Amino acid sequence: MAIAVDLLGGDHAPEAPLRGALDARSGMAVPLLLVGPRDPVRSLLDATPGEASGGAPVQFVEASDRIGMEEHPVEAVRKKRDASLVVAARLLKEGRASALVSAGNTGAVLAASLLHVGRLPGVERPALAVVLPLFEGPVVLIDAGANVDCPPSHLLQFGVLGRAFARVLLGIQQPRVGLLNIGEEPSKGNEAAQQAHGLMAGRIDGFVGNVEGKDVFAGACDVVVCDGFVGNVLLKSMEGFASSLLGAIRQAALQTVRGRLGGLLLKPALGGLRDRLDYRTYGGAFLVGVRGVVVVAHGRSDARAMSNAVRMAARGVQDGLVAALEAAVAGLSKGERADGIGQRP
Amino acid sequence: MAIAVDLLGGDHAPEAPLRGALDARSGMAVPLLLVGPRDPVRSLLDATPGEASGGAPVQFVEASDRIGMEEHPVEAVRKKRDASLVVAARLLKEGRASALVSAGNTGAVLAASLLHVGRLPGVERPALAVVLPLFEGPVVLIDAGANVDCPPSHLLQFGVLGRAFARVLLGIQQPRVGLLNIGEEPSKGNEAAQQAHGLMAGRIDGFVGNVEGKDVFAGACDVVVCDGFVGNVLLKSMEGFASSLLGAIRQAALQTVRGRLGGLLLKPALGGLRDRLDYRTYGGAFLVGVRGVVVVAHGRSDARAMSNAVRMAARGVQDGLVAALEAAVAGLSKGERADGIGQRP
Repeated sequence: MAIAVDLLGGDHAPEAPLRGALDARSGMAVPLLLVGPRDPVRSLLDATPGEASGGAPVQFVEASDRIGMEEHPVEAVRKKRDASLVVAARLLKEGRASALVSAGNTGAVLAASLLHVGRLPGVERPALAVVLPLFEGPVVLIDAGANVDCPPSHLLQFGVLGRAFARVLLGIQQPRVGLLNIGEEPSKGNEAAQQAHGLMAGRIDGFVGNVEGKDVFAGACDVVVCDGFVGNVLLKSMEGFASSLLGAIRQAALQTVRGRLGGLLLKPALGGLRDRLDYRTYGGAFLVGVRGVVVVAHGRSDARAMSNAVRMAARGVQDGLVAALEAAVAGLSKGERADGIGQRP
Repeated sequence: MAIAVDLLGGDHAPEAPLRGALDARSGMAVPLLLVGPRDPVRSLLDATPGEASGGAPVQFVEASDRIGMEEHPVEAVRKKRDASLVVAARLLKEGRASALVSAGNTGAVLAASLLHVGRLPGVERPALAVVLPLFEGPVVLIDAGANVDCPPSHLLQFGVLGRAFARVLLGIQQPRVGLLNIGEEPSKGNEAAQQAHGLMAGRIDGFVGNVEGKDVFAGACDVVVCDGFVGNVLLKSMEGFASSLLGAIRQAALQTVRGRLGGLLLKPALGGLRDRLDYRTYGGAFLVGVRGVVVVAHGRSDARAMSNAVRMAARGVQDGLVAALEAAVAGLSKGERADGIGQRP
């Protein structure tokens, strides 16, 4: 039971992953395996004052190569056997670690997880689960970008995985699961969504049917299921829109003396909101459906974001996330094969 | 050259469409055809003080039936030949009107337009174009929900229609057209997006390639092209997120005396933003690719929203929107058939 941290992933590697991992240790019991090159990591480690201050034990695992953000994921993972990400994934395969945290190339993290960590029995496609920090409460978005062109059976599995994820990591006993669609009626939407509605109804406890974009932000469900293309567009649009809207508020406030004063007084309140929407507060996306806890942190992650990502991974390990996901998918498979699940119509 | 206004469409019919139509007349040259029941419309008209105050001439066209928001679009349009929407669509077919404005059942407006108004030559599927009032400048989203499961050739046409739309209605001489996707590289995204990228490159002037959700809000393009499923999710999510974020700002401000004072001072500035994001400011979506200007207003439209929708329709008529769209699609078709456009691989 350890967390392998990829020190060479992300825009601010190796400083941010290293700093973040060390910061995350306090009060954490799960040991850390820092995967990266001896230098400059050793010297950074030596220079870190917090090193001896307790918390989770740390071990260093050497890996000299790195996979760049622009490299072809599968090719890079196959060729670069000494890349920090690949070495970290092998630690999971060998049972030396139960979790992996990387801010590197998302496609490469997926590829390394599939090639070296492997899927849970019965899982057709692992998916990215992201916790959206909405004002009405956190909502799990699944799939946030791992799979495009998803047949209905994949959407059903995302719902099952997302529900188990919300139970374990958000502590919601009876999560409400919604299918993202463009209308409330079961007959609405594209072919995949229409058929997924039929598959999910009756098979997923707490299925609330179709939810529209606006419902997601009105607290209509705890888990929202969609194709990774739609999920990724939604996630990135939210990010872009929030930053655009907060920028516009700032600009509007700066235009008059009255507005400037108002903005100054409102700053602490707006700052709290900005923090809440900030990707760093929450750390990363979980790749669910593989034989380990895999957290993909934002490529822009700084030390704070990386630290949160490592803490999230520790929660996943300690709360038995993988076992819960495995049980959920096993429960789905039993006696359901006859209904054509897994076959694209 | 007249605008047919469906008086029985939307949550606030007939008052809001009628009031909105009458309000829109001042300074407008295009005549209005008000389509609805003699009563209570006649009495409302008689009681309207602005009636004689000049502006566009108004004529009344009787239609007693209405199509409800929950009715099956195609069936309802086929059966209810006296519904205000169907009568209005026939006015376009007969050449008595060149535009139609309705806040009714969107599916029924699409069905009535297809059945009675008809497509422009060469248009495979009409699409909904919506002007997003973003802070970095207006952006045309096409398709915002008319078509799901779009093959690449449809996405190409949406790009061509959207570009012509932005030129005419937003006055942008060289609109930048982006394909909504989950990565910048041409190889990213689902099958339809990958192939659409290939079709659009070289065939659309000002094609800027793939744009991600966050790029749309950073001013990366003037026209964003996507499948109607994705577009509708994006549109409604934006609506939901904006209202949720503004609500959260309000709540955060109310929690402290300092915040309350700040909120009070900032109110005019925030009010401007709220207005800007309000669907009423901008009126509705254009169904482009049919033989007339068709504006679908929000079902919740009040008189102000309806008035803006009628003004938008008038601009479309006066600026020759339909002719521009027809020319754009004709330009695309010439010599392009051999490339497999129109065939789903």
